[in-house]
Amino acid sequence: MTSQPPVSPGRIVAIGGAEDKTSDLEILKRVFELAPVANAEVAVIASASGIPDQILPAYQAAFERLGASRVHALDIQDRKQAADPGNVQLIHQSGVIFFTGGDQLRLTNVIGGSAVLNAIRERLMAGAVVAGTSAGAAALPSTMIYNGASADALRKGSVNMTSGLGFIDYLIIDSHFLERGRFSRLMQVGATNPEYLGVGLGEDAGVIVHPNRVLEAIGPKHVIIIDSRNLARSNIADLSMGEPVAVENMILHAMVSGHGFDIEARRYLVADELKALLADNQ
Amino acid sequence: MTSQPPVSPGRIVAIGGAEDKTSDLEILKRVFELAPVANAEVAVIASASGIPDQILPAYQAAFERLGASRVHALDIQDRKQAADPGNVQLIHQSGVIFFTGGDQLRLTNVIGGSAVLNAIRERLMAGAVVAGTSAGAAALPSTMIYNGASADALRKGSVNMTSGLGFIDYLIIDSHFLERGRFSRLMQVGATNPEYLGVGLGEDAGVIVHPNRVLEAIGPKHVIIIDSRNLARSNIADLSMGEPVAVENMILHAMVSGHGFDIEARRYLVADELKALLADNQ
Repeated sequence: MTSQPPVSPGRIVAIGGAEDKTSDLEILKRVFELAPVANAEVAVIASASGIPDQILPAYQAAFERLGASRVHALDIQDRKQAADPGNVQLIHQSGVIFFTGGDQLRLTNVIGGSAVLNAIRERLMAGAVVAGTSAGAAALPSTMIYNGASADALRKGSVNMTSGLGFIDYLIIDSHFLERGRFSRLMQVGATNPEYLGVGLGEDAGVIVHPNRVLEAIGPKHVIIIDSRNLARSNIADLSMGEPVAVENMILHAMVSGHGFDIEARRYLVADELKALLADNQ
Repeated sequence: MTSQPPVSPGRIVAIGGAEDKTSDLEILKRVFELAPVANAEVAVIASASGIPDQILPAYQAAFERLGASRVHALDIQDRKQAADPGNVQLIHQSGVIFFTGGDQLRLTNVIGGSAVLNAIRERLMAGAVVAGTSAGAAALPSTMIYNGASADALRKGSVNMTSGLGFIDYLIIDSHFLERGRFSRLMQVGATNPEYLGVGLGEDAGVIVHPNRVLEAIGPKHVIIIDSRNLARSNIADLSMGEPVAVENMILHAMVSGHGFDIEARRYLVADELKALLADNQ
């Protein structure tokens, strides 16, 4: 975490889970197209998953269909494998690094502080795209949610948080957001620290985090923004654990594909505004 | 519906469902205490329910425990019974009129335009309390939601609405709100007409609508307010049915017991502010 948000040349893409892998591949196509020119190798990291062998083939097939020259299914299930030079080498070859779903705590526990993670950071600074879906999306920022009730989560301490992979600062990502009705947990998170923007990703929806810290919504479903910066009052600091949290004045947006949000300016962007802002910063 | 919201001398209480009926009776106690002095008869209307015989005994026991002199379980399952002079008479005797849960469309279909509903309106104007839980809460305002998806409801036309019982104007009530993750459906409703305040009631939570159109949150769970009056932009009018709705700038509050909300001023009230405002208007 830095006081000044770092600007990475590469794009970060967070996906809410259940993205289309067999039909139009709308989101995965955008991910693949964000890779640097002449770097069509993809690394898929299924460390979050307890059943990597069951989920990896679908990603291999999807990225191959999109034109990947090679898809590396990295076998990283423990910290030893996360330090393995062979895996590090495959990261260095890849223009897309993709984290699957599963359990975000398993993911951070296995790759946090590892040589593989350092290599991914280097790749991002060199212009590669780093993407994650579901648990893999939740783990992308410097702080992440894990476990915790989906509904009725507006009780002090009902959401568990810890440090994430550190690719984005001042942002909390939640996935399966509309489908599992997770609004109340991002509200509680916003009350704990209003500086952090809540980003709730629907299934088959995602955001591209552009280098100028502008979000672009992609996919057929919704991206919800919960902005607590102008939070007026909350009782959260005075409560015992488990008591209901009061919240006054959070701002709520629902973005659809092509709309955007300027994180620093806290400004919603319709399609024309987003295009203009991204063109200015290319 | 009137252009000037009517002020009824009696209180209206909307409850999110699953209110405690056997332990502390926190919410039902407040309902009963709001009845006019020396009018301890309670009318319970289970028209919304397909299984009235199974749900009425719990309400009878609860209100008797609270001190009701008589609890009338009104047998109103069709429009003929809703016109029955005997049922009208029991309403006229009662200081509390309580609508159970079930299906709000069944409730409005059976009692809409009936002699029983007219009698309830008269009782409210004479100071009686009119309360409803779950479907019985959703049906209280002039416009109500029925059916419709709970999650991923931010698609044009995915929420069905029709006219409610007309006890409160410019307000939409949704129940089981946090438990079923219904935020997106009140967001869609707010986009259709930003004048209407969205009130999302958690289970075992409720609001008292005071005569000065101030809401008071009651019960151990949350009341969520979604205020769309300052909605900036939405694509809803340009969409085909089923397409995802974009929403810019709704205000979100979470109220706990003792906090309030001034509907006309769109102002959140912490406990002291609510007390002062209610004292001014007694």
